[in-house]
Amino acid sequence: MQRRDEPPAHPRREQRQSELRVFGWHACLAVFNHRRDAIRKVYLEKERLHELRDVISHCVAHRLGYRLLPREEMEKLTKSLHHEGVCFEVLRAPLRPLADVLAALDQGTGAWFVWLDGVGNPHNFGAMLRSAAHFGCSGVILEHDAGLALSGAACRVAEGGAEVVPLISIGSDDQALLALRRAGFSVLATVVRGGDDVFATPPPRRSVFVMGAEESGMRPELIARCDRRVGIPGSGLVESLNVSAAFAVLAAQWAAHGQRAT
Amino acid sequence: MQRRDEPPAHPRREQRQSELRVFGWHACLAVFNHRRDAIRKVYLEKERLHELRDVISHCVAHRLGYRLLPREEMEKLTKSLHHEGVCFEVLRAPLRPLADVLAALDQGTGAWFVWLDGVGNPHNFGAMLRSAAHFGCSGVILEHDAGLALSGAACRVAEGGAEVVPLISIGSDDQALLALRRAGFSVLATVVRGGDDVFATPPPRRSVFVMGAEESGMRPELIARCDRRVGIPGSGLVESLNVSAAFAVLAAQWAAHGQRAT
Repeated sequence: MQRRDEPPAHPRREQRQSELRVFGWHACLAVFNHRRDAIRKVYLEKERLHELRDVISHCVAHRLGYRLLPREEMEKLTKSLHHEGVCFEVLRAPLRPLADVLAALDQGTGAWFVWLDGVGNPHNFGAMLRSAAHFGCSGVILEHDAGLALSGAACRVAEGGAEVVPLISIGSDDQALLALRRAGFSVLATVVRGGDDVFATPPPRRSVFVMGAEESGMRPELIARCDRRVGIPGSGLVESLNVSAAFAVLAAQWAAHGQRAT
Repeated sequence: MQRRDEPPAHPRREQRQSELRVFGWHACLAVFNHRRDAIRKVYLEKERLHELRDVISHCVAHRLGYRLLPREEMEKLTKSLHHEGVCFEVLRAPLRPLADVLAALDQGTGAWFVWLDGVGNPHNFGAMLRSAAHFGCSGVILEHDAGLALSGAACRVAEGGAEVVPLISIGSDDQALLALRRAGFSVLATVVRGGDDVFATPPPRRSVFVMGAEESGMRPELIARCDRRVGIPGSGLVESLNVSAAFAVLAAQWAAHGQRAT
């Protein structure tokens, strides 16, 4: 069966790579609360006008466009049913260099990072950002070209987490490993099989959890260069935990034990 | 803009409420491994024929229909892009009465249940089933009419977890609370605010975690009747964890501490 050509795209402002269409209530509110200067345009359903009056005042004061759209048009704009009546076009926050983030940490305090060796789907990425924010993650380390992995869908699932957890770029694995170790961090490869039981040995006070994407896992050469491998023991009834569930468990282990470790 | 009417549905066998269309590789393999007698019909892409030869042999031996479908037809059948080339029509497993499941537990051993006070979306439900299977959950307690909440999409996300964790029906809250307490279980309401720190007080050796759906939360009258409230302390940077992330954290706390508690 042959597919018909898609109908012509709805006329709208072309979105640039430097911009991102953030949608969903908490995701948009987080942008407004944390970096409202990045907002370029606001779309909303009429029903949201009253709740968003501070946003509209901001638009008026800064000569930013805002536009009321019916639900159907919001769905087209966001390519989602989960826009919750609001969408912002925003400038992407630039990835932060790892050295800057490390330099800004208080010396000697506990802290943790997650290093994503492959980002995977927007749902898992957004879910991890939400858990990272909840458990006070100091940043999400990404390959240098992975900044565009942050999509509107990931921001929506992150429920505001994407605005409060820094995304961090690294030059190379070697540079990053060196900088993290110099700053006192242990780099833990998280693996499905053959890792140390994370419940038996609490994560160190300064931990980096390195995780692969759901399908592909971590690169073996990066696993080999981590300080140790950790895993989450289970029944074996399913092959593994979902990557974002595993992430929440590891982050919780750090919150429960790592930050109190010596 | 007016939507066109949907094209007429693809001609296919009408699906009954007693049946479920399970799709996705691990989800279908779990059905085949754990209750192949429930399979009524098999659909697959040609590329999967070799890997599924045991399934096809089973179909031939038991005079069950199997049908090769191109990807596009599989997408229509499963209403999903994530069918991974295989779909089974299966009889739903009946919900199990709580009393039967409790009677089958070894006396005195540690065990845990999750009680879903509202099931929420298939993604979260499926993710919870996967984590429940990983952490050896004794069953998922559902309102008596919630059995149909188990959809093909939830089974796919559960990656086989839906076949190994019993779904349990209860008559009323009162009966269930009584039966659980008689069997030595503590019933813990999981709440976003105002609960005991789950990291400070490990879950008891026999625990039931009661959870609400993402949007609606638990019914206040059920919270009031639980033994205590527990929460997962966080930074406050996001309003809460996602319900399936929170579930993974609680299950992990039980695995780490509860099953060893006295």
